[in-house]
Amino acid sequence: MVLDNFKSVISKYDVIFFDAFGVLKTYNGLIPGIEKTFDYLKEHGKDFYVVTNDASRSPEQLAESYVKMGIADVTADRIISSGMLAREYLDYKFREGLVAYVGTDNSAHYIETLGLKTISIREVNLDEAHNINALVFMDDEGFDWNTDLTKTLNLLRKRNIPVIVANTDKTYPASKNRLSIAVGALAKMIEDTIGRQFIRFGKPDPQMFIFAYQHIKNYPNVSKRNILMVGDTLQTDILGGNKFGLDTALVLTGNTQAEDAEVRIRSTGIIPTYICVSAVVE
Amino acid sequence: MVLDNFKSVISKYDVIFFDAFGVLKTYNGLIPGIEKTFDYLKEHGKDFYVVTNDASRSPEQLAESYVKMGIADVTADRIISSGMLAREYLDYKFREGLVAYVGTDNSAHYIETLGLKTISIREVNLDEAHNINALVFMDDEGFDWNTDLTKTLNLLRKRNIPVIVANTDKTYPASKNRLSIAVGALAKMIEDTIGRQFIRFGKPDPQMFIFAYQHIKNYPNVSKRNILMVGDTLQTDILGGNKFGLDTALVLTGNTQAEDAEVRIRSTGIIPTYICVSAVVE
Amino acid sequence: MVLDNFKSVISKYDVIFFDAFGVLKTYNGLIPGIEKTFDYLKEHGKDFYVVTNDASRSPEQLAESYVKMGIADVTADRIISSGMLAREYLDYKFREGLVAYVGTDNSAHYIETLGLKTISIREVNLDEAHNINALVFMDDEGFDWNTDLTKTLNLLRKRNIPVIVANTDKTYPASKNRLSIAVGALAKMIEDTIGRQFIRFGKPDPQMFIFAYQHIKNYPNVSKRNILMVGDTLQTDILGGNKFGLDTALVLTGNTQAEDAEVRIRSTGIIPTYICVSAVVE
Amino acid sequence: MVLDNFKSVISKYDVIFFDAFGVLKTYNGLIPGIEKTFDYLKEHGKDFYVVTNDASRSPEQLAESYVKMGIADVTADRIISSGMLAREYLDYKFREGLVAYVGTDNSAHYIETLGLKTISIREVNLDEAHNINALVFMDDEGFDWNTDLTKTLNLLRKRNIPVIVANTDKTYPASKNRLSIAVGALAKMIEDTIGRQFIRFGKPDPQMFIFAYQHIKNYPNVSKRNILMVGDTLQTDILGGNKFGLDTALVLTGNTQAEDAEVRIRSTGIIPTYICVSAVVE
Repeated sequence: MVLDNFKSVISKYDVIFFDAFGVLKTYNGLIPGIEKTFDYLKEHGKDFYVVTNDASRSPEQLAESYVKMGIADVTADRIISSGMLAREYLDYKFREGLVAYVGTDNSAHYIETLGLKTISIREVNLDEAHNINALVFMDDEGFDWNTDLTKTLNLLRKRNIPVIVANTDKTYPASKNRLSIAVGALAKMIEDTIGRQFIRFGKPDPQMFIFAYQHIKNYPNVSKRNILMVGDTLQTDILGGNKFGLDTALVLTGNTQAEDAEVRIRSTGIIPTYICVSAVVE
Repeated sequence: MVLDNFKSVISKYDVIFFDAFGVLKTYNGLIPGIEKTFDYLKEHGKDFYVVTNDASRSPEQLAESYVKMGIADVTADRIISSGMLAREYLDYKFREGLVAYVGTDNSAHYIETLGLKTISIREVNLDEAHNINALVFMDDEGFDWNTDLTKTLNLLRKRNIPVIVANTDKTYPASKNRLSIAVGALAKMIEDTIGRQFIRFGKPDPQMFIFAYQHIKNYPNVSKRNILMVGDTLQTDILGGNKFGLDTALVLTGNTQAEDAEVRIRSTGIIPTYICVSAVVE
Repeated sequence: MVLDNFKSVISKYDVIFFDAFGVLKTYNGLIPGIEKTFDYLKEHGKDFYVVTNDASRSPEQLAESYVKMGIADVTADRIISSGMLAREYLDYKFREGLVAYVGTDNSAHYIETLGLKTISIREVNLDEAHNINALVFMDDEGFDWNTDLTKTLNLLRKRNIPVIVANTDKTYPASKNRLSIAVGALAKMIEDTIGRQFIRFGKPDPQMFIFAYQHIKNYPNVSKRNILMVGDTLQTDILGGNKFGLDTALVLTGNTQAEDAEVRIRSTGIIPTYICVSAVVE
Repeated sequence: MVLDNFKSVISKYDVIFFDAFGVLKTYNGLIPGIEKTFDYLKEHGKDFYVVTNDASRSPEQLAESYVKMGIADVTADRIISSGMLAREYLDYKFREGLVAYVGTDNSAHYIETLGLKTISIREVNLDEAHNINALVFMDDEGFDWNTDLTKTLNLLRKRNIPVIVANTDKTYPASKNRLSIAVGALAKMIEDTIGRQFIRFGKPDPQMFIFAYQHIKNYPNVSKRNILMVGDTLQTDILGGNKFGLDTALVLTGNTQAEDAEVRIRSTGIIPTYICVSAVVE
């Protein structure tokens, strides 16, 4: 496997899209040295965006978390999350009534900024559910899986309403050796059980990439040829970036480890343009 | 849709296999009048067995529950459950160490009768899991879904061990208008998330039917032509019975309602030999 | 089921996206009366586009076929096909070598306009395939399924190259009572068999809708709120339009028939904003 | 990876089940040395059966092919094929009319021995299909895929009849470096396209193993503990054998190669009891 130098790779592009988890940060903080990458980007006038499957918080709150870790460059206007797409969907398509949500109250605050009335699945009374007109899966926390997933199933049996999944990931890293089950897996279980089609937002769906593309500020009308997608996961970052017509760089600091990369590329048929040790500019 | 008379249907067969839920009983007791069916079977020397996707209790405990509802005919030796197949699997294939289980302690007692040592997923310590050599999904109760399903996922990431699903059903009726999520749906979520292949027991798998077939006492060497499978669900009872070579009767007292029966038969291509209002002999 | 009047529905929108098959035309010509719809659109200054899963011909050739049927309004610049997306993908991502195609020579001519060298799967010699760097499924005709699908499988076993599916549909109507198997079904069979991930273009994928959105000429910066998607298929037209944030109208002249519409909407959970008898303005 | 000695492995069992392709033979003849295995079995009084996903010929014809290759021990009564299960299904469940078949005339001869009237899909006239009461997928040869698979789809749209798939394999080896597409893949494409449920016979389905179990002659009432399943494919031979409660031996002469075995076992979670270089007794 030939490894490419990350610095010489990004030097060829005007705009860089980064995945967050496994590329910029891990469960316990920043990828060591990643601040040098942001210095390089600023110095060379590159534009960049973080494209992330996350609906647990608003872009503003996500940006704050980077500040806390010591990176001020990742401002809210540089973050494209699957939660933003779910919010936009509700903005266009939701007309009246209540939106029930599966997740923390914090995840709901973000969609409430549209002026929508929301209700946690915790608080839903199935006998008074007639004015619930949409359901959104936001986060895996903030509710009791035993009682509230069962309630979710029965709510959907009563009400044929649109169901939005604001993060399609099945797991996320909770610590060095532990994964947590993400809301995408819980939503999939309910979808399979009820046999209906949910509306899912998140990479590899091209809608994430077009949303990011439309947010590019410093290079209006940039050609896709001058954008690079950097990610650690073949099935989301690389597949989605490829399909949208971008060049793609796989980094080995997250889901795909050095010893597995070649086998996985061969077995999935998902082929990155480059493979780099990490997204750190040395 | 032409409806067949249940009495004249069963009169043609020596042995009857019944599904339990939606055929003999519902969430709150026996199907009204079903005792007349057992009277008829006894009077005419028909042999019968209950073939059920259930691993929550032993056949003895299942039989007791029929006695409590007022039916003494469904003795333990007439019950074939998916839990029995899971138990048999462990008996043949499990050599040493601990079996972790997802479910109630009661569901585990049944597999402990083999002399196996078991541990609830609740009690598993991931740092001391080296002697856990199999995992069994038994029941949807008896553990905390938030913490213990996540623990299940991480146990399987640490230990490449056989995983047995003792009931493949995705839901079961909890009351007139409510479904509960069954252990089959929880197991499927973990299977999809980890990407491994679990070993699943339950209708429509032919192993359930061959197990029942081998238990027939009064008609040794009966031809499959003289056995009827009676069920309320096309995807499990009817598909499984058909595939095993049995004639099948769909009854309309459970999952498949009179107004949907024709549409579902046409759209699934699963065709019962007969359709009857219920399994009650009038 | 309440039916909406198509004329009063489209009066509320500035831009209309139409599916082709089952909405504007059928296997043997135009939907009777559809010319009145185009008259209405012109008279009222509405902009419209045809958004179609089709890679068998270029937009120019598709436009010609409307002229032959008697409609001059559907010009090439008003047609958005899945073939255009496949062509764009190759334009951005394909660097050198040969593109093998599964389909007619005519379907390949369109991608050759990029300056690419192409070769029909018919002509591929597996022992000299080292310079084939992409494979595109374009059409179900133009090759022998027995020999050439087998050759496709073996080509992909030899070469780990990107595979593009330029039309995801599984069937298309060949006559009043007959369906043909579309290239999307053939591609899916090869994808399942080899276990790799293909890159698929076509509704309900949002990339089709963003591509159409970017082609709107007369209403630059139109809000999604002022665009209506009209289609006959819940799983492609309505699901895709909804997800992209558009209002949607289901018409009953194609895949979804009046007697099935309600059952299908309930069972799939895909909910159109309107249901109309047809796309004909009366 | 610790390799087990095949001779000492089989010495522990009374009955051996062998897969055919990749274990006893390959595309161009017997596995070199396999005759020594049959000598050993005879000498030590072991009983053995060949359990194979194959419906292209009758057991008699399959046995003949072993004689031609120089092995006389594999007699017809020692062969259990998925075609036998399909034939048994028709024997129990098919009452009257015509069985349409997808495959060679030779594959149909075998089911005709039941006294059924059959018709090749090649000869079917869709306007006179009212007396076709079942469809069987037998083989990938003997018909034109372009015209006859399309005809199959339209036949099933007209007639809601049981569809039997007599071999679930997706591919088979045609030469050292080439695979052929098997009838299981073609059937799956039609099943996905029409959305109905077909009845499928073949490993890993337990029905194959119970059928073999019931055919054991020399060890009546042998415990499953004394039967070994030997195969080259994790997803069919090993998964099916394990689930049926048998010990299993993976050999590395077919689908699973030495360098991949460990990775595949880890990623699928399908765990053989033993791993051996080949089924040759040295």
